[in-house]
Amino acid sequence: MQPLSLPPRLLMGPGPINCYPRVLSAMSTQLVGQYDPTMTSYMNEVMALYRRVFNTKNQQTFLIDGTSRAGIEAALVSCLEPGDKVLIPIFGRFGHLLAEIAERADAQVHTIEVPWGEVFDPQQIEDAIKKIQPKLLAIVQGDTSTTMFQPLEALGDICRAHDVLFYTDATASIGGNPLEVDAWKIDAVSVGLQKCLGGPSGSAPMTLSDRFVSCVRKRAHVEAGIRDAHHQGSSGMRIRSNYFDLPMIMDYWGDERLNHHTEAATMLFGSRECAIQLLNEGQDAVIQRHQLAGEAMLQGVLALGLKPFGNLKHKMTNVVGVYIPDNVDGEKIRHDLLNIFNIEIGTSFGPLKGKVWRIGTMGYNARQDAVLHTLQSLETVLRRAGFALPAGAAVDAAMAVYSGEV
Amino acid sequence: MQPLSLPPRLLMGPGPINCYPRVLSAMSTQLVGQYDPTMTSYMNEVMALYRRVFNTKNQQTFLIDGTSRAGIEAALVSCLEPGDKVLIPIFGRFGHLLAEIAERADAQVHTIEVPWGEVFDPQQIEDAIKKIQPKLLAIVQGDTSTTMFQPLEALGDICRAHDVLFYTDATASIGGNPLEVDAWKIDAVSVGLQKCLGGPSGSAPMTLSDRFVSCVRKRAHVEAGIRDAHHQGSSGMRIRSNYFDLPMIMDYWGDERLNHHTEAATMLFGSRECAIQLLNEGQDAVIQRHQLAGEAMLQGVLALGLKPFGNLKHKMTNVVGVYIPDNVDGEKIRHDLLNIFNIEIGTSFGPLKGKVWRIGTMGYNARQDAVLHTLQSLETVLRRAGFALPAGAAVDAAMAVYSGEV
Repeated sequence: MQPLSLPPRLLMGPGPINCYPRVLSAMSTQLVGQYDPTMTSYMNEVMALYRRVFNTKNQQTFLIDGTSRAGIEAALVSCLEPGDKVLIPIFGRFGHLLAEIAERADAQVHTIEVPWGEVFDPQQIEDAIKKIQPKLLAIVQGDTSTTMFQPLEALGDICRAHDVLFYTDATASIGGNPLEVDAWKIDAVSVGLQKCLGGPSGSAPMTLSDRFVSCVRKRAHVEAGIRDAHHQGSSGMRIRSNYFDLPMIMDYWGDERLNHHTEAATMLFGSRECAIQLLNEGQDAVIQRHQLAGEAMLQGVLALGLKPFGNLKHKMTNVVGVYIPDNVDGEKIRHDLLNIFNIEIGTSFGPLKGKVWRIGTMGYNARQDAVLHTLQSLETVLRRAGFALPAGAAVDAAMAVYSGEV
Repeated sequence: MQPLSLPPRLLMGPGPINCYPRVLSAMSTQLVGQYDPTMTSYMNEVMALYRRVFNTKNQQTFLIDGTSRAGIEAALVSCLEPGDKVLIPIFGRFGHLLAEIAERADAQVHTIEVPWGEVFDPQQIEDAIKKIQPKLLAIVQGDTSTTMFQPLEALGDICRAHDVLFYTDATASIGGNPLEVDAWKIDAVSVGLQKCLGGPSGSAPMTLSDRFVSCVRKRAHVEAGIRDAHHQGSSGMRIRSNYFDLPMIMDYWGDERLNHHTEAATMLFGSRECAIQLLNEGQDAVIQRHQLAGEAMLQGVLALGLKPFGNLKHKMTNVVGVYIPDNVDGEKIRHDLLNIFNIEIGTSFGPLKGKVWRIGTMGYNARQDAVLHTLQSLETVLRRAGFALPAGAAVDAAMAVYSGEV
């Protein structure tokens, strides 16, 4: 049993990516008890920090102890009772995931789709809302499977006008792209740390509006064994999951501190540093850093003679899809990048499998040196695989973006 | 936004407790990609390590990315279809938790109970199995709410004789008490790191027998968006949770590496060290260390004139319940221990709330110095609160246990 030893990879795929050093350092901090005043005070601080990350005043802003899809499932199963109608516009793999989680909750799931590489016009969504009259609109903000970024600004007003709750999964986009929870009137958002926030997978920050809270509070139920005179069972339809029961989780994070799980303290410490990194550098500055890195990577791959995937007008800042050229073995290129240069880029899912690489520029790795190392190395492995390309053009194109020449 | 800074608490409650230093160190390791061969090789190694921790040959041994109750819910919702009968013998708070998770899965839940502080005789359980004929027996091995340890040795044969699956939650007991998954014919076990394994909350190691695997495999279903020609939907009744769908989780940990969640790598690194700590020191040696520390703590509190809770014959090695003496403010004592001595002991739930302290000796803290510091400090705060006690007797009694005099 050897000590843990991992190669120094530069993670330029669609996530997870390398953590910010301050995040890793915090995760080796010794624990205190779960109700220790220092622990609950850090829990409160994390709530306040993520309110700023989400640009919201929502009191109910906290972490779900699990990976990103734990946050999605908590939002959907706590909100949707069997038979409730939900509208899910799908523009990639993660839209399908929302639909399948809602189906398992026995909700009445209605989907609309656009081809992979496109996003929805708000009018399409409003038309579907009028027709279906769902309880909830659930949509992904950024879908790494296609690299697309769905504009959400107009959807909040549409939802309020039709008395629909509005949930979004912003895991892939948060930190590298704008997300204005209150201004855009989004009722529930869940994310993960492992993309532009620069942390490890395993914690899902979430925020809930008062409208969303009153919806799930109707189903509040305190478990037997910790029930007392103040906490009788509720009359609402009980949420099907104990672990993802948002009213119970809110009571754990709230003043009551009613025991639910034992907070994953180490993940909380990491989540805290992710937020501080973003807020200290400044959200606008971090988004701009992602825009620059993403544009530099895009111009670099274009200069290599490669073709980007999807409607670039709606690409996230932090990831680009690149068609694998004809006569090039896409997996061999990825293999060589990893094994010769210690650089990881991503493969694809579903309809894009084997056709597209996905190259990320996220969080800690949204840096000029990371972009340039990746482009140089991609150029080298493509050249050695027999692909004709203009030597040095990729790096020049990327550096031109950084120097403001384009 | 100050750097993370926590007081150096000695955590002598029912968990979480202080992590082993090697666990914390590993958790500041930089990441690699989720399908990096070095990552999948560590995932395989963690499976092998936990087979040894669980004393099993079960192929399906892996981590659930969540706290202990995430492991419980994964086992129960993947196994139990609506209407399925489950027998849950309850001897404390966590038995109620199993029942409530099973109820939310719409299983037909049958419970039997013994008073808090006692455990079941196998005959009581066999009688109930004969009467109810459940699909599953679900029982906690050690319930920290009462400190009791349920003997499981005889239950496996009973379950096989009646064709019942057998699940246990061993979160509170694992590492500090024996658990022989194969020898005792247990079909499914889930645990957490935050007790005798000496890690943080947030990862739930789990092992499944072939019998349990074929039960849940009947409900296998691959989510849309990553389905291809090889992975069509199944005809079984779909598991209600995506996050806790064990067949999908097994396909992620298996050779297929079919994407489900993104493994919480930092928690995996910590889990690995917890297992290595246990296995390097030796399971028998670690259990003996817990026996010694637990016995020393018990003799110490007896020497202080305090009365232990429950049937000591069935106490876990790693935690003791202690009645709060009359005319002593239990919360004031805990407060002084924490604020003057940086030592945490536990309060209680439900029927024991306000009546009993729970003092743990777990994992890294199952050490003579930790026991002695705690007893000395408890003596001091009790004395200063006006409680009459024999000076020095607690430490002498504990040291006598360590020197083999009793």
